[in-house]
Amino acid sequence: MNRSALMPVEEAIARLLEMAEAQRLQDSEPVLLSEARQRVLANDLLATMDLPPWPNSAMDGYALNVNDWHGEPLTVSQQIFAGRAPEALRPGTCVRIFTGAPVPSGANCVEMQENTQVLDDGRVSFKQPLAMGDNIRPQGQENRAGQVLLLAGKRLGPFELAVAAAQGCTHVHVVRRPRVALLSTGDELVDPGTPLKPGSIYNSNRTLLSHWLSALGCEVIDAGILPDDARQTRLKLEQLQHAADLILTTGGVSAGDADCLGQVLRECGKPLLWKLSIKPGKPLTVGHFGTVPVIGLPGNPTSTLVTFGLLARPYVLRIQGVEDVTPLSFPISVGFAWPKPGSRREYLRARLEAGRAVLYPNQSSGVLLGASWADGLVEIPEGCTLEVGDTARFIPFSELF
Amino acid sequence: MNRSALMPVEEAIARLLEMAEAQRLQDSEPVLLSEARQRVLANDLLATMDLPPWPNSAMDGYALNVNDWHGEPLTVSQQIFAGRAPEALRPGTCVRIFTGAPVPSGANCVEMQENTQVLDDGRVSFKQPLAMGDNIRPQGQENRAGQVLLLAGKRLGPFELAVAAAQGCTHVHVVRRPRVALLSTGDELVDPGTPLKPGSIYNSNRTLLSHWLSALGCEVIDAGILPDDARQTRLKLEQLQHAADLILTTGGVSAGDADCLGQVLRECGKPLLWKLSIKPGKPLTVGHFGTVPVIGLPGNPTSTLVTFGLLARPYVLRIQGVEDVTPLSFPISVGFAWPKPGSRREYLRARLEAGRAVLYPNQSSGVLLGASWADGLVEIPEGCTLEVGDTARFIPFSELF
Repeated sequence: MNRSALMPVEEAIARLLEMAEAQRLQDSEPVLLSEARQRVLANDLLATMDLPPWPNSAMDGYALNVNDWHGEPLTVSQQIFAGRAPEALRPGTCVRIFTGAPVPSGANCVEMQENTQVLDDGRVSFKQPLAMGDNIRPQGQENRAGQVLLLAGKRLGPFELAVAAAQGCTHVHVVRRPRVALLSTGDELVDPGTPLKPGSIYNSNRTLLSHWLSALGCEVIDAGILPDDARQTRLKLEQLQHAADLILTTGGVSAGDADCLGQVLRECGKPLLWKLSIKPGKPLTVGHFGTVPVIGLPGNPTSTLVTFGLLARPYVLRIQGVEDVTPLSFPISVGFAWPKPGSRREYLRARLEAGRAVLYPNQSSGVLLGASWADGLVEIPEGCTLEVGDTARFIPFSELF
Repeated sequence: MNRSALMPVEEAIARLLEMAEAQRLQDSEPVLLSEARQRVLANDLLATMDLPPWPNSAMDGYALNVNDWHGEPLTVSQQIFAGRAPEALRPGTCVRIFTGAPVPSGANCVEMQENTQVLDDGRVSFKQPLAMGDNIRPQGQENRAGQVLLLAGKRLGPFELAVAAAQGCTHVHVVRRPRVALLSTGDELVDPGTPLKPGSIYNSNRTLLSHWLSALGCEVIDAGILPDDARQTRLKLEQLQHAADLILTTGGVSAGDADCLGQVLRECGKPLLWKLSIKPGKPLTVGHFGTVPVIGLPGNPTSTLVTFGLLARPYVLRIQGVEDVTPLSFPISVGFAWPKPGSRREYLRARLEAGRAVLYPNQSSGVLLGASWADGLVEIPEGCTLEVGDTARFIPFSELF
């Protein structure tokens, strides 16, 4: 095989995103805020009101008009609790006010109670110089009515849903869930809970990917386990092509005689990618079967994990309209040496210990335990060597969900 | 107020974790793998079998016995697909083998097909020197039967659930969900979907916290909105104390006359913490009402967010038995100056741009939009000043879910 023909990871991501742009889901639906976590906003969320809707006090204390005050103690003419509509400030007085309560018209300053003293006659004296605007949250400080609060394509987490709640929304309009048909290929696979036949192993990739897809807002169609048979593979893809927005497969994408999925895609479909410069995960295959996109992940669990996280994840987010599909990554110091430069970009399961990345001892692509042990992936570019203490890029796993 | 009396964040976390240890949930339940995401493992998960269960081929190629081979082309005596039980290797031959297929007894090496040539007479010649063990994944490479795969207290995500599936598990034993009563306090609060009265605002903290608590495995009891009234506060806490494992409140914890929750806890309960060295979030209050723990978060949305993420989150994880409750954090270069040292530890909403942390322009504790805009929190220790390019600690928000 010609190594120079391997496609760089960035190029593969760019091609997948281009493909995703052409497959952007057009339908949206209103969902309750309580159901909207991990969904993607379909339209810009506009503010329907100023927030706060009126100037309010940032402190428990006393509100007054500083322009009208010359250092003398002031009579308390009103108490304003949060949630009450105040009367206007009576000139020459102050008002007792609590955090979050509306500042009365005529007042332009709040002094925190710690800096005041209540005199025997009930008047309040102020200890420190006061300035206009002190301890007042102005109306519209957070947002103005009509302002765009969240852009279409924003993934909705607790913070974004709280922003919508603060506007009084009960629902948000979200992009419909992508329907992802999950298809495991391999004669050796059996479902957990069934007896293990000689030569067989349990299918763990379905569990891995169905949870991960759900976390990314997808509806998962369980398309079962497919035997290594070209005719059955073709039939299955024909069945699924109208039910799914994406067919996601694991296994069957190498060049071997048993790799029916790769074969069928090359014969009947339109393969886009073939052989990535990535380790683990080189035989990732992407294409179309008829009109439906197919992403064929390699079947070794760690290869599945790395290629899904780095390549399929951006795709399933982008078809929902998510702009920002790049996980945060951080330069970290490595606690290991990497003396042999690799011809493919390598992603190693690593944990941070005392600020340094430490490797899971067994980096075989079959070993899933390492991912559970690790905090994320260390990226080692093609041709790169490292000494202990050198810097590499680290992608926390938490960024990939 | 005496500033030196402010409690450092680490001490508050340590006290909360100590309190959580005493409240550790004892009950567990079996749940389907498909339902177990974001739950916490109740017992160590032990391997029931070696994985892989037999030596298998890491490549598509040919298996042979290198000790029995002297460079000559070999006849192919068997084809072994994944999922098939092979016959023993006939001496002096090789077998065609595919990725994942069991290596037959008698074979001790697999050569990848790229390095072989099929001759006209059907025999296979090998181009490169071969070594024992090449391209074979040994039995038990991932784990041995009886080995601890996941420790009790592990939070279950896609990777961990896939580890369980690979053992054939359909269920895992998880700690029961903590029942968290969520109580908003404040006369000014109204629920989204109801008309906004003069002086009132919409309650966004309930949405924020109910999604966040769900993501942390909790069952949320909606305990409604409580007016600023000491008697009603006491009654509500009495009602909730036997229904919940934790009462989580927002608002009403400052020292003002309207801060009933703080008052009631100080009078009837056992307050543990009072006044943290944190900004935003100083008036966090923790204690017990009767036997039930109460965590009183300040009510400004950003204060709620910071104190929940940094202080309440570790608590709700630890009562489920999670050992590792510390979010990953990273040293980053700051793209802003911080000339005025603060007396409290400050957590700023920041985004990473070109490798540097950039601040959301409005860091007011009332502003929730900044959290949605940001990638995480920059921590500025007490008394610290920063110049552009200096290093600070950054906690990605993704680490807090």
